[in-house]
Amino acid sequence: MTTTLAQFESAEYAVGKCCKIALLGFGTVGSSVVRLLGSRSAEGRLRLTHVYNREVARKRVDWTPSDVTWTEDINQVLSSDVDVIVELLGGLQPAYDWARWALRAGKAVITANKQLVAHFGSELLHLAQAEQQFLGFGACVAGGVPVLSGLQDGLAGDRLIQVRGILNGTCNYILTRIEEAGASFAEALTEAQQAGFAESDPTDDVDGLDAGAKLAILARVGLKAELRPQQVSCNSIRGVAAVDFEYAAELGCTIRQISTAKRIQRQIYAEVGPALVRKDSALARISGSQNVVVSTGEFGGDTVFSGHGAGGNPTAVAVVSDLLQAARHRASGVERPYHLATHSCEVMDDSESQQYVRFVVRDRPGILASLAGAFSRHHINVDAVLQRPGYSKSKLAFVMTLESCRKSTLRAALAEIDKFDFLAEPPLNLPILKEGPCDAFAL
Amino acid sequence: MTTTLAQFESAEYAVGKCCKIALLGFGTVGSSVVRLLGSRSAEGRLRLTHVYNREVARKRVDWTPSDVTWTEDINQVLSSDVDVIVELLGGLQPAYDWARWALRAGKAVITANKQLVAHFGSELLHLAQAEQQFLGFGACVAGGVPVLSGLQDGLAGDRLIQVRGILNGTCNYILTRIEEAGASFAEALTEAQQAGFAESDPTDDVDGLDAGAKLAILARVGLKAELRPQQVSCNSIRGVAAVDFEYAAELGCTIRQISTAKRIQRQIYAEVGPALVRKDSALARISGSQNVVVSTGEFGGDTVFSGHGAGGNPTAVAVVSDLLQAARHRASGVERPYHLATHSCEVMDDSESQQYVRFVVRDRPGILASLAGAFSRHHINVDAVLQRPGYSKSKLAFVMTLESCRKSTLRAALAEIDKFDFLAEPPLNLPILKEGPCDAFAL
Repeated sequence: MTTTLAQFESAEYAVGKCCKIALLGFGTVGSSVVRLLGSRSAEGRLRLTHVYNREVARKRVDWTPSDVTWTEDINQVLSSDVDVIVELLGGLQPAYDWARWALRAGKAVITANKQLVAHFGSELLHLAQAEQQFLGFGACVAGGVPVLSGLQDGLAGDRLIQVRGILNGTCNYILTRIEEAGASFAEALTEAQQAGFAESDPTDDVDGLDAGAKLAILARVGLKAELRPQQVSCNSIRGVAAVDFEYAAELGCTIRQISTAKRIQRQIYAEVGPALVRKDSALARISGSQNVVVSTGEFGGDTVFSGHGAGGNPTAVAVVSDLLQAARHRASGVERPYHLATHSCEVMDDSESQQYVRFVVRDRPGILASLAGAFSRHHINVDAVLQRPGYSKSKLAFVMTLESCRKSTLRAALAEIDKFDFLAEPPLNLPILKEGPCDAFAL
Repeated sequence: MTTTLAQFESAEYAVGKCCKIALLGFGTVGSSVVRLLGSRSAEGRLRLTHVYNREVARKRVDWTPSDVTWTEDINQVLSSDVDVIVELLGGLQPAYDWARWALRAGKAVITANKQLVAHFGSELLHLAQAEQQFLGFGACVAGGVPVLSGLQDGLAGDRLIQVRGILNGTCNYILTRIEEAGASFAEALTEAQQAGFAESDPTDDVDGLDAGAKLAILARVGLKAELRPQQVSCNSIRGVAAVDFEYAAELGCTIRQISTAKRIQRQIYAEVGPALVRKDSALARISGSQNVVVSTGEFGGDTVFSGHGAGGNPTAVAVVSDLLQAARHRASGVERPYHLATHSCEVMDDSESQQYVRFVVRDRPGILASLAGAFSRHHINVDAVLQRPGYSKSKLAFVMTLESCRKSTLRAALAEIDKFDFLAEPPLNLPILKEGPCDAFAL
């Protein structure tokens, strides 16, 4: 089958000379990229020539082409005649320096490094344009799901007003375990670490920084908005407990880490954090390492992209898709300045939504009146009060749902509520994403 | 907001001179395209100059730019200096002649005409390449869902082995009405016609020709296979009755018109028709005019694209996305021969799957033995027999599910069964798409 496929592909990409590739970083994704390139080798257009890794001796494998140079000397790579650098190192440095060096040396750069692109995408894209080089980063968001090309090319004719999705598999795993096994956050995290789904320091995942970086890239490509990752409002999933899934279920919902960027007039709002989503929505049905992005366009409505958001092979597919584009770019000499078309915009740090607030109290008469009074003083309307039976009187968990209100208003009310002495734990508040065009679309 | 957006967009598309556009056909999609172009007019890169329609006087509207030429003389359009022809006429002729004429006259062509591309895509793409012109047809499949660009660019790095989806909204509407209201096919069709979801001659939709044309295009772009629409095996949904949804529900399934093209070694198999799909699959949850495509790659696994598959605005988004690409193409002068990379392949007309067979019989002893005997003579294993209570003895509906068998073998067994005198109606057989990578992916 390989031969036959190679024949099709050689027809497809016979638009230029062979494209020499250097790989920086030979981990899971790197070795998948090499395997994928090997499976297309008959076409002869994409040729791996260098693999860079620290302590390269312990990384070297015997199944790559024999003429590949393995090196731990980056200068050997950057000063070579490779056409494309594939950066799979992660982290801001030295990736940022090396990417700039490569672009200035007339090489295309393809990266799967979401932090690099989220923080320095604008600079790197301007540099790539100035140098007339290709910069590809399709692998930075949602792994193998071609959402960036979809937003940028396939939906170019629309005006997107919102991108929303599940972009972090670790949070998905942890929240699903809390939901299914009634585990605590700590237990679910330990499980995720043991299963290899979470790192020993899980901060970036569970506190939303990983998803926030991806969201900044999505906002750039989909909403044409220059959004710095530090402008994304991040809430941790650490406060979510099994009891919250029980109450969410009563509301026809589940809880997921949701990333949303939306344009409101000339402003943008971007948020990552746990939220209640309807059980019959596309967002609720994503499991494990799957990712989903729902884009909302003024003309085309909601479009859903989903698939494998992580793992060596899906990410390698995105890298190789970028490589093919880089090869075409090199053959044709065209620059496509599309990613540059962003504008800096005012970032709002406030938004409005229905809210779920879960209290854990030492029960006594008058609690509801105190809470309702506090909300009322801030002009927040209580929608419903839910109390499931069976909780102990000294640690009674119940929920109030609030009509749509501003986050800042809710914060003020909760600051007042925090002083009540009947609270056994700090309250947990989560937005309820029940309404709006994305949630109405039950895929 | 328009001004602001236009500013971003002018930055984005300021890569060439203004691109003059002629529209052939001013119906629902045509007027949406004009409105969408109008909303981007400040950028000045895409400029509508001609609208062609038969009896154009009755079509003319007063909200287009005053310098647009409205004409019913195609020669006036084709001999003008327009850069791009947007063909929204439908039908094979005169669309085919005019598209060729336009390409030869040095114009790009964008079409939403699935029959044209399914039948003559290969010829037109070769002509476009020879003339170094852009040919865009993103609007031909799944309306506003950017599945063609996703398969072609975003997943270029993978090797796709299957594309499967729901590509026809009319069938979706009819099947959903049979399911929800217990209507007969005839009743649901009449309802769909009255609601404007089905044409007075519904053949193309319900018998699978519309979806088959789209599937041929998907196979070209996704599987790189040259598949003629007449090589797609089509089964009508006309035989599906309310009782089938009742039995399907007992199997955890519903019934949808499913289009599948898959590569099996060097061969390809393509089929459109009603099938049982798991209720928790992405395919089961598509409603109304929504479309979904699930692609399966050797490396990246399953990727799901879904959204609005029909309607003026979503289709116009796809057309305008192609227009932007045509404008870039014109500015840069690059040809992208990607669509040409197909190969003619052997088309199988046989496939294997689990089967659902519904019988309606005049009840008497020995029926099951006769049927089981017939299947057994053809080495088909019966998996289960389902009989719901409450049907009349003279018109008793029951179901046999069969273990995976070849369609040709089943056809032979059913030919034998057809002679049994206890049949009150011809049996209905539907594949059960329970297994395989696509169906295991419960979005």
